[in-house]
Amino acid sequence: MSQGRERSFWGWGYADRFPDEGARRAIGEQLAALLGLSRAPTPLAPPTLDAIDMPPPSVTPDATIAGFASVDRRERALHTYGRGYRDLLRGFSGDFRAAPDIVLRPRDEPDVLRAMAFCRRARVALVPFGGGTSVVGGVEGGASRGRFAGVASLDLRRMDRVLEVDVTSRAARIQAGATGPRLEEQLRARGLTLRHYPQSFEFSTLGGWIATRSGGHFATLYTHIDELVESVRMVTGSGVYETRRFPGSGAGPAPERLVIGSEGIFGVITEAWMRLHARPRFRSRASASFTRWEDAVEATRAIAQSGLYPTNCRLLDASEAALNFVADDGSHVLLLAFESADHDGVAAITRGAAIAEEHGGRVSKIVHRQGEEQADEAASAAWRAAFLEAPYLQSTLVSLGVIADTFETACTWAAFPAMHRAIVDAVERAMRESCGGGRVQCRFTHVYPDGPAAYYTFVTQGRPGDELAQWATIKRAASDALSLHGGTTTHHHAVGRLHRTWYDRERPVPFGDALRAVKATLDPAGIMNPGVLVDPPSGPGRSSFPPPPGDGRSPLG
Amino acid sequence: MSQGRERSFWGWGYADRFPDEGARRAIGEQLAALLGLSRAPTPLAPPTLDAIDMPPPSVTPDATIAGFASVDRRERALHTYGRGYRDLLRGFSGDFRAAPDIVLRPRDEPDVLRAMAFCRRARVALVPFGGGTSVVGGVEGGASRGRFAGVASLDLRRMDRVLEVDVTSRAARIQAGATGPRLEEQLRARGLTLRHYPQSFEFSTLGGWIATRSGGHFATLYTHIDELVESVRMVTGSGVYETRRFPGSGAGPAPERLVIGSEGIFGVITEAWMRLHARPRFRSRASASFTRWEDAVEATRAIAQSGLYPTNCRLLDASEAALNFVADDGSHVLLLAFESADHDGVAAITRGAAIAEEHGGRVSKIVHRQGEEQADEAASAAWRAAFLEAPYLQSTLVSLGVIADTFETACTWAAFPAMHRAIVDAVERAMRESCGGGRVQCRFTHVYPDGPAAYYTFVTQGRPGDELAQWATIKRAASDALSLHGGTTTHHHAVGRLHRTWYDRERPVPFGDALRAVKATLDPAGIMNPGVLVDPPSGPGRSSFPPPPGDGRSPLG
Repeated sequence: MSQGRERSFWGWGYADRFPDEGARRAIGEQLAALLGLSRAPTPLAPPTLDAIDMPPPSVTPDATIAGFASVDRRERALHTYGRGYRDLLRGFSGDFRAAPDIVLRPRDEPDVLRAMAFCRRARVALVPFGGGTSVVGGVEGGASRGRFAGVASLDLRRMDRVLEVDVTSRAARIQAGATGPRLEEQLRARGLTLRHYPQSFEFSTLGGWIATRSGGHFATLYTHIDELVESVRMVTGSGVYETRRFPGSGAGPAPERLVIGSEGIFGVITEAWMRLHARPRFRSRASASFTRWEDAVEATRAIAQSGLYPTNCRLLDASEAALNFVADDGSHVLLLAFESADHDGVAAITRGAAIAEEHGGRVSKIVHRQGEEQADEAASAAWRAAFLEAPYLQSTLVSLGVIADTFETACTWAAFPAMHRAIVDAVERAMRESCGGGRVQCRFTHVYPDGPAAYYTFVTQGRPGDELAQWATIKRAASDALSLHGGTTTHHHAVGRLHRTWYDRERPVPFGDALRAVKATLDPAGIMNPGVLVDPPSGPGRSSFPPPPGDGRSPLG
Repeated sequence: MSQGRERSFWGWGYADRFPDEGARRAIGEQLAALLGLSRAPTPLAPPTLDAIDMPPPSVTPDATIAGFASVDRRERALHTYGRGYRDLLRGFSGDFRAAPDIVLRPRDEPDVLRAMAFCRRARVALVPFGGGTSVVGGVEGGASRGRFAGVASLDLRRMDRVLEVDVTSRAARIQAGATGPRLEEQLRARGLTLRHYPQSFEFSTLGGWIATRSGGHFATLYTHIDELVESVRMVTGSGVYETRRFPGSGAGPAPERLVIGSEGIFGVITEAWMRLHARPRFRSRASASFTRWEDAVEATRAIAQSGLYPTNCRLLDASEAALNFVADDGSHVLLLAFESADHDGVAAITRGAAIAEEHGGRVSKIVHRQGEEQADEAASAAWRAAFLEAPYLQSTLVSLGVIADTFETACTWAAFPAMHRAIVDAVERAMRESCGGGRVQCRFTHVYPDGPAAYYTFVTQGRPGDELAQWATIKRAASDALSLHGGTTTHHHAVGRLHRTWYDRERPVPFGDALRAVKATLDPAGIMNPGVLVDPPSGPGRSSFPPPPGDGRSPLG
């Protein structure tokens, strides 16, 4: 399962990717220069498995689950948190009091049924676990410890096969535990690809993507995993919920849409038929630089509303562009690309570039490529490497006492300018007041005819021991600002336990009632991922943020 | 509301469009030639309002609803049925025993609340009514008469305004009762258009489209109204269910998707923010003729999977092509078109035509047009006229004793060949056995990368008095065949009361449970459009088809 390489029990990805002290010291010095700090942050020593604070397990596997259950310390540590900033910080500090009591790794769907039956009998909360890359507390079952006899983490990664490929209809039946590389590797032989590349691609799983409505590679049209799901199969406490394979239907409310985004509260997604693409043979790309942010936004809006549907349409503000080595002259940069297995993108990118020029953009040379994607295609390889490297960097920064996090939203084009100003103002003010300053930057990850999905990164220096409170101040300021100005709580990071406060405000009240009714129907024992999306019947009316100390969730809060 | 012209109380559209006896006789003679009948069918006299069979109303409006309530005979007749074949037949025969007791025409949302409160108090079933063009029994509240003190039809057409336009984000807030022409006329001034043209466009309403997941103009991408709904507002028995305006979101299961397709069982849709398009200025079109059906299907599949996303991609089998005067040489014809407000479709249609040729298609001259759509643009005007004329023709055929109906589905490309053969075989056999013969033909109305939406028309001669049973035999054969071979019960005609048997089979069982739970939550009084999508708690476990005689639904069945 570990593919031969050990995962870090507290940080992002593979353990051997965590830099040594010398390398971290150098990164600290670079960062001090970037943020204008008076002195470089000092690398702190990472936790060791022996020294972490973890209670003994309160659950003992019985014979029905013994074949795939573990109460091993390392396994439990690996399944305690996701990989959001809070998680990294708590993990780095050695706080694993929220660890699950038991980790279950089902080999097949009957094992999933056994796991559910065991948890029902034993009054154990059951938390589906894919890659464990949630940044919103989606897999942190320990938060509910008090109300259950224990907490089980259900790791689906043994169920990682492509079971069937329908080349004619370009679809495949794939088990929920397949990671991005695992499923792409199996599809490649058939000339097909899912082309869904969230930043967590290396580790996250199909089931996780569906449960959280993850956002992927395509800047337009197929932005979320939602559109790629042809049918889905979920095991629930009241039977198997399996939708049929239809390219489209008008028969009642879409049954798959109730599963997509359900974040494990109804049941366990075990497999799905996914819509695939032929591997692209034509690629065209260009970039446009803008002096004024407003012009860049207008150009992006015009392209989003043009009907050209670019594969990539990523707008980076000047700070993002500089940090990603895309521009160093203070320009905002729009990256535009088209790809196709069928036809060249000459007409499309020419028109896209013209729109950018009409809005004051300085357009780079347009580059066309043809043929199978090459592993060594320098530019895209560099971009992908940097993209996949970013979460590793965040773990490193945590070890330097640096607060670095991202958040994202989407709103209408009309709402965007005011929302953006409000977010930047709120985050800068929060960083100034709680950390003495910091940096916030923005990019568009996806665009729609009616609005952009805006993604923000902030970086600031924390005070040792105060980081969680400082971070919570910034996070709250950001979420309040975006929510107040018409942004959604999350465009693709999901709700989990972290975003409940704002999700509860955004969601239509009767829809909350509906979700609770559905949960009571599909999860009558009330054991599935408790606390996510809706409160348990006996729980508080609203989630609190940040969680109060002593509830097992966030002792640093 | 009637826009100065009177609607037929039993047939399609405007009353003055029903042909006189001479014209109908001529149509009967043409049809006899087409179907190879030994003698032309005789026109029967249409019903008169005075002579129809309609019970007196059992509901008396109180002061709270008096300002917008009516028990007028004509009003009640107009709201008894939709306009499916069964409806036309029963209406033509003068059977209005299923009439609602009262018709409510709310002027605004407070009136809707008054209507719901009245119905709750009086134990009256409440059936939302838009254009009354359902072909699946979606507005036939009389079917539930026995379980309630009466039945009210809630006609939303007074609420027909565009309330707000966001030109920047290309969206508008529109009241649910606006018909196609009403909303397009209000949007035109802003240079925008919804471009959703179901065949019922003239009469059906935005709220009806959303409630039934109607299919529209675009053959790809924006096929259903679903994709065009930015946010929706629904009044329910437990509060207002209003989703927020987001271009995209990943926050929990999509709340709007539970409303879209809910067919009035949860509440009353009162308005929605809809995604709009700029009015197209560039149009390119071509057609391709194929000798072999299989080649035509493969060409269409290749185009659907090409990423070209044509606006129109309609494949007509030889019989459809002949009947629509598109080809008279036995060819199957693919109609291909691109439209855009931003850029010409030269590259796209050239590639689309090349794909058709690669699959053995003989491609017509490609035609490009530029500039505002002209009212007198002959070809499209002719097509639109014929498209909008078809439902009128069906009413005329009913008056000639001819059984003519359509049904539709969608399945994967892999499943299509076998499903198509099974459908054609089943329908031909049913027509042969119950009517002595008849004609069935097929077209694709929409196409997806993973499969087509196939639309079938059948025409045969009925035996006077037996038509409903004959039709039911054919309909059952068709639905059984498509359902058995991987087709959805409906791609865009909805479920209503007609398709319940097959919908119940297709829907995941736990999703049925979930729908019932949601209905109990949002419609605690259980008065909203009873019998549609789910059975009432006290009702039968499964709907029967055709409905047994004497239950007020279908005395002819």
